[in-house]
Amino acid sequence: MHLDRGAAETDAVDEDIQASLSADHGGYHFGPPAFGRLPNRAELEGFDAELRSHRSLPPGVVESLELLPSDAVPMDALRTAVSALALYDPDAGDDSRDANLRKATRLLARLATAVAALHRLSQGLEVVAPDPGLNHAANFLYMLRGERPEEFEARVLEVTLILYMEHEFNASTFTARVIASTLADLYGAVVGAIAALKGPLHGGANEKAMDVILEIGVPERAEAWVEESLRQKKRVMGFGHRIYKTADSRVEVAKKWGALLGKQLDDTRLSDICITVEEVMRREKNLCPNVDFYAAPIYHMMEIPIALNTPIFAMSRVVGWSAHIIEQIDNNRLFRPNSRYVGATDLEFQPLDRRG
Amino acid sequence: MHLDRGAAETDAVDEDIQASLSADHGGYHFGPPAFGRLPNRAELEGFDAELRSHRSLPPGVVESLELLPSDAVPMDALRTAVSALALYDPDAGDDSRDANLRKATRLLARLATAVAALHRLSQGLEVVAPDPGLNHAANFLYMLRGERPEEFEARVLEVTLILYMEHEFNASTFTARVIASTLADLYGAVVGAIAALKGPLHGGANEKAMDVILEIGVPERAEAWVEESLRQKKRVMGFGHRIYKTADSRVEVAKKWGALLGKQLDDTRLSDICITVEEVMRREKNLCPNVDFYAAPIYHMMEIPIALNTPIFAMSRVVGWSAHIIEQIDNNRLFRPNSRYVGATDLEFQPLDRRG
Repeated sequence: MHLDRGAAETDAVDEDIQASLSADHGGYHFGPPAFGRLPNRAELEGFDAELRSHRSLPPGVVESLELLPSDAVPMDALRTAVSALALYDPDAGDDSRDANLRKATRLLARLATAVAALHRLSQGLEVVAPDPGLNHAANFLYMLRGERPEEFEARVLEVTLILYMEHEFNASTFTARVIASTLADLYGAVVGAIAALKGPLHGGANEKAMDVILEIGVPERAEAWVEESLRQKKRVMGFGHRIYKTADSRVEVAKKWGALLGKQLDDTRLSDICITVEEVMRREKNLCPNVDFYAAPIYHMMEIPIALNTPIFAMSRVVGWSAHIIEQIDNNRLFRPNSRYVGATDLEFQPLDRRG
Repeated sequence: MHLDRGAAETDAVDEDIQASLSADHGGYHFGPPAFGRLPNRAELEGFDAELRSHRSLPPGVVESLELLPSDAVPMDALRTAVSALALYDPDAGDDSRDANLRKATRLLARLATAVAALHRLSQGLEVVAPDPGLNHAANFLYMLRGERPEEFEARVLEVTLILYMEHEFNASTFTARVIASTLADLYGAVVGAIAALKGPLHGGANEKAMDVILEIGVPERAEAWVEESLRQKKRVMGFGHRIYKTADSRVEVAKKWGALLGKQLDDTRLSDICITVEEVMRREKNLCPNVDFYAAPIYHMMEIPIALNTPIFAMSRVVGWSAHIIEQIDNNRLFRPNSRYVGATDLEFQPLDRRG
């Protein structure tokens, strides 16, 4: 999934992709992905080509996105789009493992197109068709902006997409597993996961982290701002995590690439603010940042609107959701917890006419 | 919510409803429902009028339903419709308790309209606008068929809707709670619940129960059919439940009303089949039927297509889902289970060029 593949090779694959675009027969165009190990070069390029061949949204879905109110919350619009995509999947109605793998591949390809299309439509702009000559991350930026991105910028986006791809039993993944445990379809489980990811206690947190960074504004103010917030007992968004009590291994990677992007853009203010806030929070509260705290400013440096942070999270995390759904179904037991009734038990029924 | 309210009273309410239809301001038209106790007559009629005033689907949603493929699985289409409804709710963006109660009221009113509209569209028929002069159940049958139903038939449907309304921590309700625990919006939590309800291990089971009854066909064959199935160690659908090991209290009610409907239609074959199957299953396996086993034939006697059984279940259960979502948020803790990794831990990274 690097941009620097030889041009000749890219063109050859592109012709195959173009041919496959008009023949969505429900199978793979370039063969299934590798399982249980990292792919070799041929497998990686096959899967990459496979993704490139599935990017286009069915015309019916684009039409229905055009109908959505332009002030729609992007995550609500994305949830609706993915629910509609289910109806057009060539494997719709087939809930076998093989069909689910193909559906997951299509969803990975199409979710990025849906996020870009929803954004363009909300701005009153024409939807940009995917370019099969660009890799997943570069094509997303192209569909979002209508201009091909710099290679390095696309690589930084790709790194954040890899970081967000999977993170075990978070609330959205758990939602997907609960839905899948009824043997409902894979799309339905992903739709539920998108609904959960929107919540401010989950994916929505990354938008809040960005608000903090913007409020600070310049690196010189960061230390005083954090100290003042702590004095006022305000919660600093972007810090603390239910699972990580020491360090989130994704943070160092996001921090490094954010700093590199800042250098390339000749403006390291955002990443400098983050580094100072992190230092003060460690020193004063022994709290470590979560990955959102370093990913959000990367998207901001790319001039991506903050409201797209969670949809971008979703277009990456769909990989983990799909893997969990398939794993759940492979070895399924219905999630059906019991509850304990703690309300009144001595109530007497009163016919309507005797109620005060 | 009875059909036999005095005509004069009904007309007076209707005028208010008609007036309110063009003024969807986001508040209640007739005041909030009663909480913590059964409503008195004024409250009941106010809430009934409230529901009647919210039945119409926003034009944008109807347009988007018209775009859906006519062979769409009804539950997939319903999930998409409800996700789209979120974007048009006058309280969209307000996740306060009061706004959630109003959203729940609108969803209860509109889900029935959506189920009927999706069915009509799938048959190539015009969508029927709701009739505010009819109660919830009668209006649903009217929107489905384009003809006003018999009063008794509407009452039987109403009874099944009451039976399905709430059933503690089943998989769809649990899904709704997990999504709500991220503080995502009420619509998103209901969308996830609809996705889960579709599964054949959950709501989808009621379609399977009907297949059994139709396969038996006539009451005289019921006993031999069950005995033969048991001999062949086949599972008889409609029997057994994760929670009820002795009896499901809803069964006796559904059985009684199904028998009454059969008598009224002068054809008791379906309910006679059910009663015999139940007797043989109790005698041979000590298993009791679930409520689906008696509700499904009621819908069949009403000539409702089997594929609508689960959507009708959803349009009733939305009451329970909404109550659980609001209860979850009232006293929230994020659902975020841990998982234990049991895969390989001794893997070594191989660069792409060294992979076989």
